[in-house]
This record gives sequence, C-alpha cells and structure tokens, in this order.
Amino acid sequence: MEKKIKLGIIGAGRIGKLHAENVANHIGYVEIKAVSDLYADKVKDWANNLGIQNVYGDYHQILNDPEINAVMICSSTDTHSQITIEAAKAGKHIFCEKPIDYDLDRIKAALQAVKEAGVKFQVGFNRRFDHNFKKVRELVQTGKIGDPHIIKITSRDPAPPPIEYVKVSGGIFLDMTIHDFDMARYLSGSEVVEVYTAGAVLVDPAIGKAGDVDTAVITLKFKNGAIGIIDNSRRAAYGYDQRVEVFGSKGSIVVSNDTPSSAVLSTEDGVFSDKPKYFFLERYADSFLDEVSQFFDCVLNHKETPVSGIDGLKPVLIGLAAKKSYETGKPVVIE
Amino acid sequence: MEKKIKLGIIGAGRIGKLHAENVANHIGYVEIKAVSDLYADKVKDWANNLGIQNVYGDYHQILNDPEINAVMICSSTDTHSQITIEAAKAGKHIFCEKPIDYDLDRIKAALQAVKEAGVKFQVGFNRRFDHNFKKVRELVQTGKIGDPHIIKITSRDPAPPPIEYVKVSGGIFLDMTIHDFDMARYLSGSEVVEVYTAGAVLVDPAIGKAGDVDTAVITLKFKNGAIGIIDNSRRAAYGYDQRVEVFGSKGSIVVSNDTPSSAVLSTEDGVFSDKPKYFFLERYADSFLDEVSQFFDCVLNHKETPVSGIDGLKPVLIGLAAKKSYETGKPVVIE
Amino acid sequence: MEKKIKLGIIGAGRIGKLHAENVANHIGYVEIKAVSDLYADKVKDWANNLGIQNVYGDYHQILNDPEINAVMICSSTDTHSQITIEAAKAGKHIFCEKPIDYDLDRIKAALQAVKEAGVKFQVGFNRRFDHNFKKVRELVQTGKIGDPHIIKITSRDPAPPPIEYVKVSGGIFLDMTIHDFDMARYLSGSEVVEVYTAGAVLVDPAIGKAGDVDTAVITLKFKNGAIGIIDNSRRAAYGYDQRVEVFGSKGSIVVSNDTPSSAVLSTEDGVFSDKPKYFFLERYADSFLDEVSQFFDCVLNHKETPVSGIDGLKPVLIGLAAKKSYETGKPVVIE
Amino acid sequence: MEKKIKLGIIGAGRIGKLHAENVANHIGYVEIKAVSDLYADKVKDWANNLGIQNVYGDYHQILNDPEINAVMICSSTDTHSQITIEAAKAGKHIFCEKPIDYDLDRIKAALQAVKEAGVKFQVGFNRRFDHNFKKVRELVQTGKIGDPHIIKITSRDPAPPPIEYVKVSGGIFLDMTIHDFDMARYLSGSEVVEVYTAGAVLVDPAIGKAGDVDTAVITLKFKNGAIGIIDNSRRAAYGYDQRVEVFGSKGSIVVSNDTPSSAVLSTEDGVFSDKPKYFFLERYADSFLDEVSQFFDCVLNHKETPVSGIDGLKPVLIGLAAKKSYETGKPVVIE
Repeated sequence: MEKKIKLGIIGAGRIGKLHAENVANHIGYVEIKAVSDLYADKVKDWANNLGIQNVYGDYHQILNDPEINAVMICSSTDTHSQITIEAAKAGKHIFCEKPIDYDLDRIKAALQAVKEAGVKFQVGFNRRFDHNFKKVRELVQTGKIGDPHIIKITSRDPAPPPIEYVKVSGGIFLDMTIHDFDMARYLSGSEVVEVYTAGAVLVDPAIGKAGDVDTAVITLKFKNGAIGIIDNSRRAAYGYDQRVEVFGSKGSIVVSNDTPSSAVLSTEDGVFSDKPKYFFLERYADSFLDEVSQFFDCVLNHKETPVSGIDGLKPVLIGLAAKKSYETGKPVVIE
Repeated sequence: MEKKIKLGIIGAGRIGKLHAENVANHIGYVEIKAVSDLYADKVKDWANNLGIQNVYGDYHQILNDPEINAVMICSSTDTHSQITIEAAKAGKHIFCEKPIDYDLDRIKAALQAVKEAGVKFQVGFNRRFDHNFKKVRELVQTGKIGDPHIIKITSRDPAPPPIEYVKVSGGIFLDMTIHDFDMARYLSGSEVVEVYTAGAVLVDPAIGKAGDVDTAVITLKFKNGAIGIIDNSRRAAYGYDQRVEVFGSKGSIVVSNDTPSSAVLSTEDGVFSDKPKYFFLERYADSFLDEVSQFFDCVLNHKETPVSGIDGLKPVLIGLAAKKSYETGKPVVIE
Repeated sequence: MEKKIKLGIIGAGRIGKLHAENVANHIGYVEIKAVSDLYADKVKDWANNLGIQNVYGDYHQILNDPEINAVMICSSTDTHSQITIEAAKAGKHIFCEKPIDYDLDRIKAALQAVKEAGVKFQVGFNRRFDHNFKKVRELVQTGKIGDPHIIKITSRDPAPPPIEYVKVSGGIFLDMTIHDFDMARYLSGSEVVEVYTAGAVLVDPAIGKAGDVDTAVITLKFKNGAIGIIDNSRRAAYGYDQRVEVFGSKGSIVVSNDTPSSAVLSTEDGVFSDKPKYFFLERYADSFLDEVSQFFDCVLNHKETPVSGIDGLKPVLIGLAAKKSYETGKPVVIE
Repeated sequence: MEKKIKLGIIGAGRIGKLHAENVANHIGYVEIKAVSDLYADKVKDWANNLGIQNVYGDYHQILNDPEINAVMICSSTDTHSQITIEAAKAGKHIFCEKPIDYDLDRIKAALQAVKEAGVKFQVGFNRRFDHNFKKVRELVQTGKIGDPHIIKITSRDPAPPPIEYVKVSGGIFLDMTIHDFDMARYLSGSEVVEVYTAGAVLVDPAIGKAGDVDTAVITLKFKNGAIGIIDNSRRAAYGYDQRVEVFGSKGSIVVSNDTPSSAVLSTEDGVFSDKPKYFFLERYADSFLDEVSQFFDCVLNHKETPVSGIDGLKPVLIGLAAKKSYETGKPVVIE
C-alpha cells in the first residue's frame, strides 16, 4: 500500500510502543519512519523488528526530518507541551498523549502554537473510541434518553501504580480521573461548571503519605443542569471496572464491563462468570487502534480531529478543581 | 390458629390497608381487632370483608381497648410522634410508619415515651427486608467484600407524586431519600457524618415552584471512612429503579432490579426484556410482609425489633442535613 | 368474606397441604370444609391450625357431604381416575393433580364421567401459571416471534427421587417429563405427532437397575411443522433448572431461571451469582397459588378451566410414546 | 521481521482474502509470496495492495515454487482433496478450508497423501479458536463440570445462502451443521456413535424444492454415554445465534452470543440491548486470526496442528449420517 503519511513517534514506552504496533500492523498508508526515545538503545530491536529504520535518542531529529509530516507524542507528561510547540512550529500534525500538561498556561501556549501552525492536533483520550462508550454517546446524541439528568461513571483500577509514580503523577485526579472528566464531557455533551470531591485513603496508607487519595467520589454540575458522579478506586480486587450510566428524561443507558468470555459456570458452589478484562491494554485494545486510525484519517482527508485541543484542556481544568475541592472540603466553581 | 396478639391499625390509607391484608392473610397468630380512620365510613366494607369487626373514627378507641396489645401507626406523618407517645403510655407495642416525624425534638420525645413504657417499637423501613438488599447486607456483614469503601444507591420513582403532596411532604430528602439514607446505614454498617447535596429541577418546574427539587445526587461520608452516593429522580421513564452497589477492599456486590419475568425477546428490531416491577407495592410486596412478620415475632418472643427507634431518628437527621446542604450549596456535618 | 365455595381436599401430602394453605390464606371466598387422608391422625393438627374443622380418613365422607361443591384430588396417582369418576358423579367440581392416570382407558373413563356430570375439571399443570412461561406463551400467541419453528425445554431436577419412588412412578417420562410435554403443547400451541427419545443412565446406576433412565433428550415433531427438544436430568448439581426457548420466523424468546436474589459478588476469585431457586416449591410457589385461584374463579363464574381434561390426557399419551421410543430406539408416531 | 515461512494462498474468495489479510497484518514471520485464483485479474489490486507480488491463475504455479513451504487451500470445496494431494506431494505444509471433501474415499486419499509426505495439515474449523467455546472446552477438560451428560449447540444463521449455493453445497448438514459436528466432538471430548435428525422446511419453500431442509434438530449419542443436541436454522431474524451449553455430573457451562456493545437502553417502551454480532466474519474475527497463527506456529516449531486430518474427516462422517437419518426418518449408527 502507498505510504502517504510518514510518521515519527516520540517516546517508546508502553503507550508509544502500543501506538507504533497498531500503526505498523493495521494502517497501511502510514509509514513509521522514525522513533525517538531517551533510551534509544533499549528500543532498537523492538523498532527494527517492526520495520522502523531510524531510532533516535533526540526527538529533534524527528522534528528536523522534512519528510515526516506527523508525530505522536508519547514521552513523559512534563515534555508534552514543549514538544507540541516545537512540532507545531516544524509543521507536523500532532497526536499528543493525555494530558497535554498540568499547567494551564503551558497548555494554552501549546494550543496557541498548534493554531498558528494550522496543523492537526488530537489528544489521546482513547476511551471515546471504546465500543461501549461510543454507543452510549450515540444513544444520548440521538435523543434516545431525552435530556441527560444524571451521568454516572465508575472507574476503578485493578491495582495502584507504584508510589514513585503517585508522587509525580499530579495525583489521582490528574492521572486517573482525567479520563473520567473527559468521559463526562463526552457523554453529557455539556461543560462542567462545578465540582465537589470526597476523597479518602482506604487502599494504601503510603498513597496518603505521598499526598494523594486512593478512593474518590466526585460530583459534577453541568452547564445544561445535569449532575454527574464519578467514583474511583485505585484497587478493585476483581479487576478493571469501567462502567457508565446516563439517565435522562426519557430513560437510561447502562454499559457493563467487557469480559474475556461469556461463559457461566454453574456448580453446587454457585454460579461463576468471568472477571472484567484485566486492565486498560486489554479492555481498550480496540479503542487504541481506532483513535490512531481516526487521527490519520483526519490528517489525510483534512478533517477535524475527534478529540481537539480544548478537549485536552478542559479535563485538566476540572482535575485541578477536583483537587482543590478535596483540599478545601468545599465545592469549586469552574469558570 | 390461636390469636395470641390483638392488633389495632391506626390509619387505613394505602399502606395501612396493605399491612392489614398481609397480617390477615399471612400471620395466623395475630387478630386485627380494630382499625381506625378519619374516614371510617369509607373503609368499613374493606375492613369487614377482611374480617375486622371494629372500625373506629377515633384512634383513641383503639388505645383504650385493654385487649389490644399492639398497634400499627399508618396515619399521616404529622400524627406519628403524638400517637406513638399515647400508644406507648397505653402500653401497646408499636409499629410506626416512617418517618417518625420531621422534627427531631418530637422524635426524641416519642422515643423517650417508648423507652419509658418498655414497649416494642419498629419503624417501617421495609426495604431492609427486600431479598436483594438483605443479601447485600449479609455479604457485607460476613466480610465477603472486606471493608466497605464506596456505597452506591440508585433510587428513582416511576412518576412524581401530586404537587399537593410535594408541598407538605417535607421535600424529596425527607419523603423519598429517607429510605436511601436508611439503606446507606443498613448496608455500610456505619453512621453518616457528613452530607453534600447537588439538586436540580429537571423533571417538572412545578416541583421547583413548590420549593423542592426532583433530581438529586447526595454524597455521604461515613464514620468508618467509606463514601456513599445516592442518586434520585422523581421520574424514571422506564419505571421504579432500585439498585445498590457496595464496593470494598476485597470486591463488590451489585444488585439489579426485579422484573415481572426473565423473558428476552430477540427480533429483527433488537433484543427486548422486561422493565422493572412497576412501583414499590410490586417491588417490595414481600418485604412489606416480612417486616410485619418480624415485628410480631419480636412482640411474641420478646426480641429486639430489627428497625429500632434510633434507626427511625437517624435518617431524618441525615435528610435535614441533605436539605440544608442543598440550600447552602455546601457540605454539612452531622453530629 | 362470604364463603361462596365449600371445598374438600382429598389427600394431605405435600401437594395437598400446599394447596390447602394457598386456599386458606389467599382465596377468601373458598372455605375448606373438610380434608381426608389415609393417615387422618397425622394431619389433624395441621388442619385445625389452618381452621379446617373436619378431618376424615375416608374421602367418601367428603363426596357424601352435599354442602361441599368442589374437591381437590391430591391423593396418590393410582387413585386419581377412580376418585374423579366418583366425585363427578357426586356433582363436585374437580381439581385433579397430574397425571390423571397412566392408563389411557382409565383417563378416558374419568373424562367421560366429568363430561356427563357437567362439572368443572382442571388438571394440576401448575407451570402454565409461572410468570416466565406465561410470558413466553403470551409473546408466542401474540405473534411476536411469528410461526414457531423450534421449541426448547430444559428441565432438570436438583436431585433424583428415592429409588422406591422411581420404581412406582411410571418412569422419568411419566413422572417428570410429563410437565415438559404439557409445556411443549402450551408453548407451541400445537399437538405433538411424533417422538424420538435418547436416554441414558448417567446419574445413578440404581435408577438403571430400577428400569428407568436419569438423563434424556427428547425430540418432538409438532402438527404445525415445528420441532421440539426437551432435555432432562434427574440431578443438576447447581439446582433446579427450568428454562425454555421458542424460536420462530420472526425471532426468539428465552427465559432463564429465577434466583433468590440478583446479587452479583465480584472478588479476586471471580464473579459469583445466585444458584436457581432450590426446587419446585420455591420456583413455582406463585404458580401453585395462581392455578387454584383460577380454578375457583372458573367454578364461581362458570368459565372454562385453563387446563382441561384433554390437557391432562395428551401429555400421558406423549409420555407413553417417549417411553416406547426409548425402549425401541426408534421414533414413535402419536395418533 | 524475518520472513521464515513463504506462503502461497490458493483461492482468493471471501475466506482466502480474510486469511491473507490476517497473515499480512498480524503474522510477521510469514511472507505471502503468491496467491492463485481462477479470476486472477479480479484479485490483482487487492493482492498488490496487501504487498503480495505474485498473482497466478493456476495454483500449480504455487505448488511448483520450491521456495514456498506452506499453502492455504481456500478454493471451492470440490477441489480441496485434489489440491491437498498435490500439495502434499510437493512437500508443502497445508492449511485446508473445511470440509476436505464430501466423499469419504477422497478424504482418506488426501489424508493418506498428507501422512506419506509428512507435512503439517490443519482443517479450517475456526470456531475451536473462539474465546467462548475455548473457555467451555477448557472448563470441561479441567473437570469443572465432571463427566459431560448433555451437550447443546445452537447454531442459526442470519439469512439463508442463495438457492444456487444450496443446490451444490451438499446440504445444510454438510455445509452448515458440519461446524457444529466439529464443535460437538471438541466440547464433549468424545466421538459420535449415533445420529437422529428431525428436519423441516420452515424458512423458505425454495430450499425444500432444492432438496434441502432449513430447520433441523439433531440428536447425537457419544461414545462416552453423553447425549448431544444441535439445533439449526437458516434464518434467525435477530442475527447470528451461536451458543453452546455443556451439562455434566458436577454442573453446567453456558456461553451466550457476543454483541457489538453491552449497552442496555431502558425507556418507557421497555429495555433494549444489542443483537448478536451480525455474522461469522464479525463473530469469529479473532478466531480466524488465531487458527492461522497456530497453524504457522506448528509449522515453524514442529508441533501437532490443533485440528488434524481426522478432525476434518469425522464431521463429514457425522454429516452424511445426519442426512441419511433425515431421509430415512430413523436413527443412524456411525461406525
């Protein structure tokens, strides 16, 4: 197939590799011309095996390659906004992993650079491409449940991340709930105007010592009058729990977890069924592929990307408000 | 069967009649000796048909009958505490419909009278006897999910009550959510120490004009550190929605709605199944019978009633706090 | 309530007692005037406690009481047809437990007597009154799945009956599958014209020694062209398994088992839910009440009974053919 | 990635293309060196786009290429056995679409050629690789349900094939049920020794005129004593219906259909959920990939293929017996 897009991937950690493999195996018209990583040596074999010829230690080599017309920014969060600005100036279309940054000014600067350069920009909120959540959104948008009144999001991880990560991640509201804030906007079709957070340390005291909580219930008020609830836990004993419900004037939509199989085993001891798919790589495998497919389709066919810069900015805004609400014990208005 | 208990029923509206029929048809050792109602004439036929000989207009006739040893107070809410006091003084065992009162001092006076008289006292929180919720409680109590972290209660009515009722009911938090506050205590095994309420008028503007909300999301903080969420609506288009979920350190328990049948119809147009049972009379039919059965068993066998005076008091306390939180827009601490 | 029907119950074993309690507790206009049982002494206390004044050792005392206008025949199967004939001649309306008899001539004689006497006659196929199966029938009858093509009935007991019972019961096809043959006719709305049986002894060799099988798969051909499948086992480790499916030109209807609760427990070890309700008394509690309610309604209001004499005859015919098919290893045509 | 296997694909119809795309996109170490098709011109673009250089009209060009060490036979059924023999003689490893042939002698000749050549041989019973059915097999094999007693397979297509296809396909038992016969062997872990078929023309009279049936219920007796039931329809209004159940001495396993999403929409009109995935391409997408992955893994690593020549032969044997049983109206023993 003709390679119409030449791609550079910046950062080859878990998520960078995932995107690279999806592109290499499924998107015939995109050639991954180069990958960069701080530990270039470590990713060389993997890259070559995938047919990627150029492996750099410095991402500027990607940005300086005039043949490369799109980049995926999969490096550590603190570098996203800076690389976005540079890539935009270099005229590359940009797929940027979430979050763009934790600092609103830096996000705005990045979005401004994108705007000025006129390049495509998409943020990696992959859950928007999940078969279940897409269906919920579609049913809401087509009026099947009337006006949304209550949006409920359950989002629980199978296990907490390492404490070292907790210390630098920006906290649960910015590293984990941020996906749910995006989902709240996506499902409700409305903006969040106020947040109230109840948080607790119930999973691991070490998380509390690191200045974070591991259990949270967040109430959202939307511009359209609807009310949202997010409940989070860093550790669900039974695995990754990702469900949503939208209740409205004409009815409700509920989606449940995906499981490895639909097998139901009935014995003297009871009735048993599968636990949810283990974690995000399993649960969201298809959505990761869909989001990059749509990005390259937008690049190729000059369409609006499905997750814009504003979609990258807003969840950070809500996350910062959620954090403040937890710290003050009071609802926080979002302007 | 020997009629070991002589019962008087005070108030023969919908709930009084339901209790009377359950007792008459299912509890062989209880004789309903008398019923009183402000509109005695209107209930006479119903009572006679059920084999109840005495129908009074004034409940004092019941209290003055020395042969009657137990009463069920099913009159309007504003009379509950006063009749409780009089019945206690008359030495009758008391089953009192919820709520005891909206005024904390009046509740306390009623409970004091009960205490002094040494009579049995049970409050009509029937949902504690529902097969699903009992099972959840049992699994929590036996440690199946470890320590509770998040308690979620969905409670939505099929249609709002008449506006006239809304005006005098004390509002959604005291007439409807009060059941959910009881459920929160019942499922968590802990007391609520703080409440935050987000409310809205999304179902019917007339409810707003009457000074109430019709949609609410309430966050609860429990003494044991757990966090609770209640979501309410006065109108779920698909019917009565009554579900709970308890999530803890070792797992979660979820219960879904009861339906008239388990039939799943698959056609070209899709896959269809039953809506939930219509409303509380259908959904909680068995629990209404169980609660009165247990009350009379307690009376007969000198046991502690399963829903005590404190269980009647606490949900009112939480309800008043929830209301205050909605009015002030801030979390409210419960002492 | 006015006692418009005076009832005599013949046979106070498990099923006779169940019917008596349902009538006494729920059907206000029926008075159980007498009960007869070979072991009258043993049932006296139970009867008196239920308010039944007369307990006889000989059922003729019931038949000779001119005040009694209806009887329920709950004695052992070998007496059903004889008592039916006598009761009909005595002008009593008759509710007869299934099966009427295992001998076709005796069944015909009984039905003839009923016809001549012009009394109401209903056979105890209670599953027709089950909420799930009624719903399936209703959806089939109203054309929701078009013309029925395939009818599937799963019917498995939690444990085999005592070997002594197996020896005299007429075998699995006449004591157990007979309910499923009735269900096949009820759901398909058509008559069975051919039967093929595959049977095996897989649960307990003692059942084989007693001349019976404990596992069976029966193929039915219906007059309307549809094909039926029944699968039976005397022992399902997880309990009573009672499901049906009707597949037709426009779709399918499937019903699943009823469970004590809808609780789903998710832990590290998996996802657990309730086993089916234990056995027929639990699963069909409501249907037992409904069948007698409808019988007395038919008596009182001169309606056709919902399960006629022919409905009693046909399943025996199919059962005998199923047995013959198993014995010969060939399909058997039913005339 | 190093291309360790050079593959030729014979026949580029729907299934040949599917396999080619799976290999090209997912199995890095296999190079598709050539594809042959009677209509080579029509598949050229598709092949080139996928990176396949050689497109032949005559499959002998593939067999004559000494560099090619494996072939996938995806041509029309009547050519399978002949090409298998030639490919085996040419020393190629063989993946052959099902069925190998309808004629037992020709199948045996093909298997003999494979044996003599010592090449790998796998038959395309892809459903063995379905996540649900694999799980059932695994639970059966690990003894979770004890000894299998009853195996139930529901297999219904969304729509009948064109009448032209029905005329040459060998009939429903050989073109459609053959998958279910394989599944019966796979799930039971035992061989079928007797078959009884009830068939009917209920979907389309034209199918009857073509000498086939469109609705069938087939009873299987297994060597281990278990009994099997397959129910087939050429047209399920709600889509592709593929479910199995295995019931044994210690319990049962049931799997349900896969759906595009888990969304449940509840409105005033009822509760709606997704229909099953549309047809085999959607439902078995992953299993098609898995079967070829495992084939190449076996070729590369000298393992036994998971679906052997005998696994290709037996279902044809059962299919022919099922057909004979339908024609004679009697059970047919399989030797």
